[in-house]
Amino acid sequence: MATAAAVKSPPEEEKVMTKKKIIIDTDPGIGLVLLLPSLPPPSFFPFLVFFVTDDAPRACIADDAMAIFVALRSPELEVIGLTTIFGNVYTTLATRNALHLLETVGRTDIPVAEGSPVTIKKATKLRIASFVHGSDGLGNQNFPPPNGKAIDQSAAAFLVEQANLYPGQVTVVALGPLTNLALAIELDHSFPKKIGQIVILGGAYSVNGNVNPAAEANIFGDPDAADIVFTSGADILAVGINITHQVVFSDTDRKKLEQSDSKYARYLCKILGLYYDYHMDAYSTKGVYLHDPTTVLAAVDPSLMTYTEGVVRVQTVGITKGLTIFDNTKKRYGEITEWTGKPTVKVAVTVDAPAVVELIMKRLTTDD
Amino acid sequence: MATAAAVKSPPEEEKVMTKKKIIIDTDPGIGLVLLLPSLPPPSFFPFLVFFVTDDAPRACIADDAMAIFVALRSPELEVIGLTTIFGNVYTTLATRNALHLLETVGRTDIPVAEGSPVTIKKATKLRIASFVHGSDGLGNQNFPPPNGKAIDQSAAAFLVEQANLYPGQVTVVALGPLTNLALAIELDHSFPKKIGQIVILGGAYSVNGNVNPAAEANIFGDPDAADIVFTSGADILAVGINITHQVVFSDTDRKKLEQSDSKYARYLCKILGLYYDYHMDAYSTKGVYLHDPTTVLAAVDPSLMTYTEGVVRVQTVGITKGLTIFDNTKKRYGEITEWTGKPTVKVAVTVDAPAVVELIMKRLTTDD
Repeated sequence: MATAAAVKSPPEEEKVMTKKKIIIDTDPGIGLVLLLPSLPPPSFFPFLVFFVTDDAPRACIADDAMAIFVALRSPELEVIGLTTIFGNVYTTLATRNALHLLETVGRTDIPVAEGSPVTIKKATKLRIASFVHGSDGLGNQNFPPPNGKAIDQSAAAFLVEQANLYPGQVTVVALGPLTNLALAIELDHSFPKKIGQIVILGGAYSVNGNVNPAAEANIFGDPDAADIVFTSGADILAVGINITHQVVFSDTDRKKLEQSDSKYARYLCKILGLYYDYHMDAYSTKGVYLHDPTTVLAAVDPSLMTYTEGVVRVQTVGITKGLTIFDNTKKRYGEITEWTGKPTVKVAVTVDAPAVVELIMKRLTTDD
Repeated sequence: MATAAAVKSPPEEEKVMTKKKIIIDTDPGIGLVLLLPSLPPPSFFPFLVFFVTDDAPRACIADDAMAIFVALRSPELEVIGLTTIFGNVYTTLATRNALHLLETVGRTDIPVAEGSPVTIKKATKLRIASFVHGSDGLGNQNFPPPNGKAIDQSAAAFLVEQANLYPGQVTVVALGPLTNLALAIELDHSFPKKIGQIVILGGAYSVNGNVNPAAEANIFGDPDAADIVFTSGADILAVGINITHQVVFSDTDRKKLEQSDSKYARYLCKILGLYYDYHMDAYSTKGVYLHDPTTVLAAVDPSLMTYTEGVVRVQTVGITKGLTIFDNTKKRYGEITEWTGKPTVKVAVTVDAPAVVELIMKRLTTDD
C-alpha cells in the first residue's frame, strides 16, 4: 500500500498556473454508503455504512476520499488545508481519516485542522450517517493510525486565519454540516466578506431530501449553522442533491478505476473493492452517487453547472428541520417574509453529468 | 340588482342525473384580490383586497363567489350546504357574505353553517388576506345585509351530521383554512372514513408559496388543522397553487362575462367591474387566478387534472410554517420519518387550464 509518508511538495507541473486556494471542510468516512433494499447484518460489512435512500437499489459512496483526491489532482486548485467535521463519522475520526488520506498519497504538506465535535448550538446528539463505523474507528481497522496530527488550531480559527492571509482568494469547499463555517463567522464577522467563495454540498432544491422527504443530510446535520452561513452575505455556490443525484459512478467507471496504476485509483479501489462486487451481484447495485467530487469540480470549473440566484433559508425546527427553501427574490409578497432583504446565493440547477464523471475519472486515473 | 330572495328549489333540469352531494367550506370575500406592483391607498378601493404575490402585475380574484356560482350551476353537483371559515375575511363576515351570495341567486334552500372563528389551536390572531375589508364588513357596504341567517349548528357539527346522513357520498370542497374539517375529525374520529372525498384548495407542491416562499395562504391560515386533515386517512384530493396559477381569467374572459345576461355573470361583473378597468389600465393587470372555481371543477370532473399520490405533511412552526411537503412513499430512507406510515392523498400535478376556464365561463354565462 502506498502509505507514503515523508512530507512532499506539490509536483512541479502544478506550479505554473495561478491556482485557486481551497480548503476542504470534510467528514471523511473510509468506506461506502450503499443504498440497499434492506440493512444486512453489520458484522458482514466492517467498512460499510448502510443508508437506504432511494427507490432503486443504488449505492452512494461516502465519497469525501474521492473528493479530496480529485482536488489534489486538479492543477487548477491548491489545497491549502483540510478542516474536519462530523457527518459520515464523528469529528475526531474524520480528523484521523483526513490525516490518513493525506499520508496515503504523500501530501502531508497540507495541514489538517480539527473542527467542532458538536453543532453550533452545542448539541452533542449528532446524526452520524455511519451505522457501522463508530467513533472508535472500527471502519479503519485495516489501516495503520496516521503518523501526523492535526494542527493546534480549530477549524474555525484556521478558516479565519487563511481568509485574512489571502483576502478574497480562498475558496472553501464544504462537504459536511456547516458548523465550522458558522463558527468562523461568529469568530470574525468580516469572514463572509474576506473569504473568496464557499462551495456548499448541501440542500435539496425542488426535490425531496435524503434524510427524510424534507431534509438533505449535510444541512440536517446542523440546520442552525447552515442558516447562518446561507444568510451571511458570503459568495456562496450551493450544490444540492438535485444535482449530485445526476452524477453516478457506474460499474464501468469502477472497472476503469481498477485498471489504473495511479496511487489514487489503487487506494480507492482498495477501500471500494472488498464488497463492491458482492453488492453489485447481491443487490443489483447500479452505481454510486458522486456527491463530494462533483462539488469539488464546481470549484474547479463552474461552467460544468448552471446556476440560479436567490435567498436560501433553512428551517431549524419541526418535521421539516434541515429543509432548504429557495426564493428567487423576483416574486413579490404582500408581507415582509423571513427571506426579505437577506443576501442571495447561487444554487446549481443543471449539471453536465457525463463531463463531471469523465473529469473525475481523468483526475483519478492519472498519477502525479 | 338581482338580490332575489324567496326560497327557490333547484331547477328541474338539474334533478335528472345522480348528483354528487357537495359542501363548500368557504371564506368568501366580496371583491378582488389584485396582484399589484405596489399598494394603492385603501380609500381608493373599498371592495378590494390587495395582495402582491407575483413578479408580473397580475390580479388574483377572491374567487369564492365565482366558485360557489360554478358549483350551483354544475348539474353534476348538488350543493347541500356552505360552511364558513376565516381567510379572505373573518368568519362572521364570511357567513354574512355566504348568505348574501345565496340570496342573490335565489338559492336560500341551501343551509349555511358558521365555522370556527379561531384556529384549531384557538389562536385568535389570524392572517386575514383582506387589508381593506374589515370584520365590520366595510367591503360589503353596497350590498344589503342578508335576510337569512346561519343554521344553529357549527360547521364541524354540520359536516359530521351530513357525513353520517350520507356515508361515503358527500364531497367537501375546502376553499379556505382547514379548521372546520379538523374540528369535524376531532368531533367524530370516523369522519375521515364517512366523508366521501375532501377536495382541498391548499398547498404549494414543488413551487414557492404565495404568503412567503414556503407557504400557501390556506394552509398558512391554520397549519395544525391542515396537518390533521392531510394525515386523517380521508380520501383527499389536493389542488395547490402549482395548479391554480396556471388557470387565469383574462380580460377577454371578463368581456365575455360582461356580455352575458345570466344572473351569475351580472352579479360577478358588478363586484368585479368597478375597479377592474382602472387596474387593467393603471397596472397592466393581465388577469386573475381562478383558484377557487378550479378547485370546484376538480370535484365536477376530476379528469381535468392528473394526480400523483403520496403523504403530505404540514410544517406547523418556524420560518416555513404552513409549508406542505409531499412524499411519494417510493423513496426509502434509512430512518423512520414523520411521513412514514401516514395515509396517502392525491395531489394534482397537471391541469387542462383552457378546458377549466372554458367550463367555468360556460357555467357562469348561461342561466338556470
